[in-house]
Amino acid sequence: MILDTALRLFRERGYDRTTMRAIAQEAGVSVGNAYYYFASKEHLVQGFYDQMAEEHTAAAQDVLAKETGLARRLRGVLLAWLDVAEPYHEFAAQFFKNAADPASPLSPFSDESEGPREAVIELHRRLLAGADIKADPELAVQLPRLLWLQQMGLVLYWVHDRSENCARSRALVERTSPLVARAIAASRFRVLRPLVREVTDVLGEFLLPAGDRTAPGRRPSPAGPGNVTGADPENVTGNP
Amino acid sequence: MILDTALRLFRERGYDRTTMRAIAQEAGVSVGNAYYYFASKEHLVQGFYDQMAEEHTAAAQDVLAKETGLARRLRGVLLAWLDVAEPYHEFAAQFFKNAADPASPLSPFSDESEGPREAVIELHRRLLAGADIKADPELAVQLPRLLWLQQMGLVLYWVHDRSENCARSRALVERTSPLVARAIAASRFRVLRPLVREVTDVLGEFLLPAGDRTAPGRRPSPAGPGNVTGADPENVTGNP
Repeated sequence: MILDTALRLFRERGYDRTTMRAIAQEAGVSVGNAYYYFASKEHLVQGFYDQMAEEHTAAAQDVLAKETGLARRLRGVLLAWLDVAEPYHEFAAQFFKNAADPASPLSPFSDESEGPREAVIELHRRLLAGADIKADPELAVQLPRLLWLQQMGLVLYWVHDRSENCARSRALVERTSPLVARAIAASRFRVLRPLVREVTDVLGEFLLPAGDRTAPGRRPSPAGPGNVTGADPENVTGNP
Repeated sequence: MILDTALRLFRERGYDRTTMRAIAQEAGVSVGNAYYYFASKEHLVQGFYDQMAEEHTAAAQDVLAKETGLARRLRGVLLAWLDVAEPYHEFAAQFFKNAADPASPLSPFSDESEGPREAVIELHRRLLAGADIKADPELAVQLPRLLWLQQMGLVLYWVHDRSENCARSRALVERTSPLVARAIAASRFRVLRPLVREVTDVLGEFLLPAGDRTAPGRRPSPAGPGNVTGADPENVTGNP
């Protein structure tokens, strides 16, 4: 109830202008009691993330039980997120400036957000496990995390989406799901493997949250660490 | 001089807290005079973008004259941007929340920013024209815009980069430039063409600024507009 009250006040008054005192008052509990459950306003946001991850998992259940096509499963899981997130669209837009900095505890990339992040990554793992198309084995290890990263891209797009009922975000999911499925299928081409491996490595090094960078299966780039600064950047042609 | 003064005050006091009156006062001109050159604070930011595009083009001159390797040209142009932008890193971090919304006139995606945006796209066009590796012809038309989009991705990364001298952003450029060059070379594989075309189309529809969406060379998706909502999302396998 404290969490629900907080989210309502965040929506009505904005995140920055809502105090713990006001949340306690509206929820009809003492300030001490509110602090007992949530040590700070930031912790309320973590509670919100937990709740979103839970509702998202529940909302995606149906499509994951019914569909085996990879594109349909991707589409279903991402549309389920848009459904679950819809009531918070306005809040998200003004909240975004607090969460956009990866160094903020409110960032979905932060250590503090590991719990709900791992829950969503697990959802993407199940999405992949039940699909009829399999990725290149090396890519497969990192893929649930990369799909989570793609979802974060969708969140960024959605936050700025002013179209009615976020129709643009929905159209983006409709358009990209078959594409991502196709790219995953294409990852098995032998000739593309070095490129796939490099892209996966770079995403792992620069974009995935710190705690996940040493995830099992991450391999050093084949050219070794010298690649980063010293190696010849012109070794690019592959064998087209 | 008005612009230089404004940028100094933005850095010292923050964008939100700097008024046109204060800028005029510090620059030693009348408020009317300041408004004569810049109709609003937003226009000062546009002036800043113009100046950045100009300095960036000048700083990239050297590498574009000397290098023919695509990866080296990419690397040189992006590192030149990081050099030129460095003095504004702190300003950019706190300014970002005003510019991150694509609907804001301060967004690099806005109609108001078309001038400096086109200047940077032109720089990427020259980067590609002088390189020894050519892209698939269909991709080539959109590629300068896509490289501009990649640069915006770098800006987003850099804004949040807290490493010393933005070493992480530099490392990202070192790592991604050979990769992007390789991906451009790979775009010529016949078997990848449908995927390349689709990805280019989606980026054009959803991420490029509105004015650029009808750029010459953009073709409708081969499956037609029905693709967006009605078509079978499972046509994904290609022929791996």
